[in-house]
Amino acid sequence: MTIQSFIPPQRTLMGPGPSDVSPRVLSALGRPTVGHLDPSFVGMMDEVKSLLQYAFKTNNTYTMAVSAPGSAGMEACFVNLLTPEDTVVVCRNGVFGARMIENVQRIGAKVIIVDCPWGRAVDPQALEDTLKQNPQAGFVAFVHAETSTGALSDAKTLCSIAKKYDCLTIVDAVTSLAGVELRVDDWGIDAIYSGSQKCLSCVPGLSPVSFSDKAAEVIKNRKLPVQSWFLDQSLVMEYWSGQGKRSYHHTAPVNSLYALHESLVMLQNEGLEQSWARHKAQHDKLSKGLRDLGLDYIVPEQERLPQLNSVYIPKGIDDVKVRQYLLNEYNLEIGAGLGQFAGEAWRIGLMGYAARSENVALCLAALKDALTQ
Amino acid sequence: MTIQSFIPPQRTLMGPGPSDVSPRVLSALGRPTVGHLDPSFVGMMDEVKSLLQYAFKTNNTYTMAVSAPGSAGMEACFVNLLTPEDTVVVCRNGVFGARMIENVQRIGAKVIIVDCPWGRAVDPQALEDTLKQNPQAGFVAFVHAETSTGALSDAKTLCSIAKKYDCLTIVDAVTSLAGVELRVDDWGIDAIYSGSQKCLSCVPGLSPVSFSDKAAEVIKNRKLPVQSWFLDQSLVMEYWSGQGKRSYHHTAPVNSLYALHESLVMLQNEGLEQSWARHKAQHDKLSKGLRDLGLDYIVPEQERLPQLNSVYIPKGIDDVKVRQYLLNEYNLEIGAGLGQFAGEAWRIGLMGYAARSENVALCLAALKDALTQ
Repeated sequence: MTIQSFIPPQRTLMGPGPSDVSPRVLSALGRPTVGHLDPSFVGMMDEVKSLLQYAFKTNNTYTMAVSAPGSAGMEACFVNLLTPEDTVVVCRNGVFGARMIENVQRIGAKVIIVDCPWGRAVDPQALEDTLKQNPQAGFVAFVHAETSTGALSDAKTLCSIAKKYDCLTIVDAVTSLAGVELRVDDWGIDAIYSGSQKCLSCVPGLSPVSFSDKAAEVIKNRKLPVQSWFLDQSLVMEYWSGQGKRSYHHTAPVNSLYALHESLVMLQNEGLEQSWARHKAQHDKLSKGLRDLGLDYIVPEQERLPQLNSVYIPKGIDDVKVRQYLLNEYNLEIGAGLGQFAGEAWRIGLMGYAARSENVALCLAALKDALTQ
Repeated sequence: MTIQSFIPPQRTLMGPGPSDVSPRVLSALGRPTVGHLDPSFVGMMDEVKSLLQYAFKTNNTYTMAVSAPGSAGMEACFVNLLTPEDTVVVCRNGVFGARMIENVQRIGAKVIIVDCPWGRAVDPQALEDTLKQNPQAGFVAFVHAETSTGALSDAKTLCSIAKKYDCLTIVDAVTSLAGVELRVDDWGIDAIYSGSQKCLSCVPGLSPVSFSDKAAEVIKNRKLPVQSWFLDQSLVMEYWSGQGKRSYHHTAPVNSLYALHESLVMLQNEGLEQSWARHKAQHDKLSKGLRDLGLDYIVPEQERLPQLNSVYIPKGIDDVKVRQYLLNEYNLEIGAGLGQFAGEAWRIGLMGYAARSENVALCLAALKDALTQ
């Protein structure tokens, strides 16, 4: 056995993530590794925290990046806030709502499911009806941007309903952060997690999270230890807090954090609102082009995510063959359908650095070619 | 607020990890991101698996890298194998044995502690005495290379004792893998975890793990779901298995895996036994030089890790001042003491790419200068 160095192909990534990574971010990623307690690194972590507060539109002290992918960020939110005594209302309109339910069940807490059709936003009325009937519920969890379908839920309204029934909110913003309007403080979100590899266009492997003071209080006052040592945020916070001596918890993924820092600097330079607007503008171009190709969206227009475009595969077209053709002929990746839409849809991502005119043009031209092969 | 790009200083990393990363690995890390289901990437993952089997000296099918740091790899081993019904004997001779106990307790399983002095190997007789008195124990866990003290335990003997009492073994090889002799199959290790950022000299953030067929059987037959969704290895294995269709679990940290692949290719090219020998040879040079500087090791010679050299801070010498001087004047990082040895010792790492003559020479010269300031 002699295995050689791996030289990856140069792809254009327009699937559900990872999204295209800017050369600036890749260059930051490859900078020399320093120790995770190096004064220079610790200063950079403080900046990451500030930049994440900016991206989340929050002043939450407990804002940081979990040293693992988005699904670990999800788990961090659930295992730190919940105990088996709790009741959680989870809204499910796709794969990631279902994953939230898995998380609650593995904690042994009670879950009440608000089921909404796949490919649609969560129905606020359905949430309110459920909360009315279940006064014991203490938490409401939902996915802001369902990556499996491309549906955007109205996080502001859902949070205000949750507040009305005295529930803390846990929000999945894996695909929404930096791609659509998201205001953690204004909307009253108590725990939120995202992923580095979507609209931040950083490499995959990190999960930005933020906890409101109320959520931090719940974590601080819990009697049962968090079931995960690695994800125990009260321990992690001592490393990220920046107050006094930083205590060692685990070795931070130093280089990945360089990359996250750089992607957030780029976001700051562009401006958050400008980033939202760019995603929308490119989406408008793409959706017009897709319509011209005769492709239909799964999600109704007013509930669509600009950054994730799910369209039905036309009758008679071979899903796998088209995606392979795009990959082999154009080095272009688009996503397959997931869950209920496996084999039925394509998911075309316009996330972060991928939300550019040249990508939209390439995608439309390549798809046109593929569909007429 | 305007935050600039972060340009890290160029350090020489001779602490307890992360260790110096070779430019080859940094260059691999910064290669263009591809999708985590891209055929080229999936092929690379198969190679990572083969290379990890080589590094661990195992044929275990369930050999892969957890998408998070070593402490998550530790947790993956414990939460997948244990249920609250189980009894585990944990040997504690430093910080990381103590962390194993935390893991067992958070699962709700029963833990029996074999306490051994810090700075010494685990005492096989103490383990055997404990197992004799506790026939209900089903697992034995210990740290092969205690990063907090620099002590090397006799994993082969400890495993053979565990087998004698029908226990499965869980071994922490975070600092040992590729730095000292380690034979997973020959020694009968059932679950093992390591870290990317020690003697593999890859960037921090990944945890290579391997499970024996027996351990995989236990995982497959468990009735209680694993308490962590993210670390549930039966789900992760479906992604890593390479048999048939790979099912999506979480987005793999694509670029970090490029780096791990490259560091393992370098290990394969050097040869595993040659890597062990290099660590030993550089250790011999370093230990001679440290003795000449009047520095005494914590660990007796026959129990010392070549790759982690813990020495007492001489009386009258200011710990922090010396380490700051090394960092500011020489860009050289050595480690502080941890746990019982906080403020009492330095930990000098010679891990992976850092185990080179030029590093030893720099470290000795810089220390000599610092001690006479």
